Amino acid sequence: MRTYIECIPCFFKQAQSAAQLVKASLKTQKRILDRLALKIPKFSLKTPPPYMGRIIYNIVKEETHKKDPFLKIKEKSNNIALKLYPYLKKRVKKAKNKLLIATELACIGNIVDLGVKNSHIIEKEVESFLKGNFNLNKKYNKALFDFQDFKKKLLKAETILYLADNSGEVVFDRILIEEILDQFKNKKIFYAVKEKPIINDALIKDALFCGVDKVAKVISSGCDSPGIILEYAGKRFLSVYHNSDLIISKGQGNFEALWGKNKKIFFLFRAKCEVVARHLNCKLGDIILTRKK
Amino acid sequence: MRTYIECIPCFFKQAQSAAQLVKASLKTQKRILDRLALKIPKFSLKTPPPYMGRIIYNIVKEETHKKDPFLKIKEKSNNIALKLYPYLKKRVKKAKNKLLIATELACIGNIVDLGVKNSHIIEKEVESFLKGNFNLNKKYNKALFDFQDFKKKLLKAETILYLADNSGEVVFDRILIEEILDQFKNKKIFYAVKEKPIINDALIKDALFCGVDKVAKVISSGCDSPGIILEYAGKRFLSVYHNSDLIISKGQGNFEALWGKNKKIFFLFRAKCEVVARHLNCKLGDIILTRKK
Repeated sequence: MRTYIECIPCFFKQAQSAAQLVKASLKTQKRILDRLALKIPKFSLKTPPPYMGRIIYNIVKEETHKKDPFLKIKEKSNNIALKLYPYLKKRVKKAKNKLLIATELACIGNIVDLGVKNSHIIEKEVESFLKGNFNLNKKYNKALFDFQDFKKKLLKAETILYLADNSGEVVFDRILIEEILDQFKNKKIFYAVKEKPIINDALIKDALFCGVDKVAKVISSGCDSPGIILEYAGKRFLSVYHNSDLIISKGQGNFEALWGKNKKIFFLFRAKCEVVARHLNCKLGDIILTRKK
Repeated sequence: MRTYIECIPCFFKQAQSAAQLVKASLKTQKRILDRLALKIPKFSLKTPPPYMGRIIYNIVKEETHKKDPFLKIKEKSNNIALKLYPYLKKRVKKAKNKLLIATELACIGNIVDLGVKNSHIIEKEVESFLKGNFNLNKKYNKALFDFQDFKKKLLKAETILYLADNSGEVVFDRILIEEILDQFKNKKIFYAVKEKPIINDALIKDALFCGVDKVAKVISSGCDSPGIILEYAGKRFLSVYHNSDLIISKGQGNFEALWGKNKKIFFLFRAKCEVVARHLNCKLGDIILTRKK
């Protein structure tokens, strides 16, 4: 997806939020925004937004002298999500359509704010989402949730590449992977995480901590951008990317980076901003399961 | 008021909205944001936001080759507000506390979007606001609406300087000025507008079109910034500014530019952004009538 003009103010908002979140001094916050500002004139709107996301969070890292500014947030998310694991498994077990619920849960893992709340509050939120309360306008629009197409393609796929998004959310991904392996035999699943810290995105250690390695082959994408940018991706990742039969791409960042690149990529995420919602002709807050045909 | 770090993303949002409003091409929109970006590193957070507002809208003017990009919007606002004049006069006439209603109306003139809707819809909106529905959270917080202090100072003041904000809104200002002249004898009122086009701010011709010259001496501030910046103000304006006994300052722009400059300035506006609301310790959407003591 290309960058829209509305993304530019949002880049500054992201940089400012990130700088405040990692408790940078006001002087450092200003310096972060100043450095971002100097990148704008050279940044083409033809470029997908995650290219700039990568620049922003690298500036934040450099200016705050923190290699992994979101480390604590990630650790909290992992811990709370792991606590939820038994509940999530039970929730899938008692469902009529287990694969659908597991797919929805994989998306919900991206929506609930795992870093802040306790597991009981999150359980309530998960239940609320499972009742169809996905849309910010309280109307769950399933127009772009093409579960039947997804299921059909899953059935045929032998090798699946799963692109991770945030830490913590990994546990929710694991539930979906376990359900896929349970329903369809002889699947080989790769689980690709980021190479270096970028926001609260999952790294190899997060995937291992959340136990995804028990059910999938965990690999690094080679990227440190929010959303996998193929030109920055590692050789091994690219080999899996090209040779897999189906790709499950989690999160809006991966959507922005990879939309239109390949018909075999199913994007599973929530439309979190107006620009993406407009691009897909859906409502803000909708959950999406779709591929570019 | 100083610039907060959160103002920087907002500068870009303002520039982008202004560029879109005047139907600039995507290329021009990007060029406007690029030029703004280059101004950020040199911009100190100690500077009030209207300094940047001035820069932004001058870039928009230059890049769109339009000396007055908001001209049509201003003309529409003037026309619709003038149509409302008889209704507004009637509304004050039937009120118990005429000065209070006229003061509230002066603020409401800034809130209702005069450029878009028809006069009947605006009449309904005005009635809704007069019922106390000022706050965006639907609770009208009068904590910072110090009408008694205002009335007391008005009584004593001989020379009053009234700082205009938007076109159209001028008609609402005229109602307040007429009420002041009606209730208190021997007042001399100056009505200061912007020197050159800046957003939809009133110019001399707007003040004349709306008939303020019948009740006040219309002068130019010499400024082309959204909010009067004293160092850019004209000599004649500054003489009136220093020699007047009381100043009524309309709009958030004037608040941002002049807050803390002088105890005799009463700021009458709606807190339209979180930053200003936080600065004043009020709620977003509150209407404010206060001075720095």
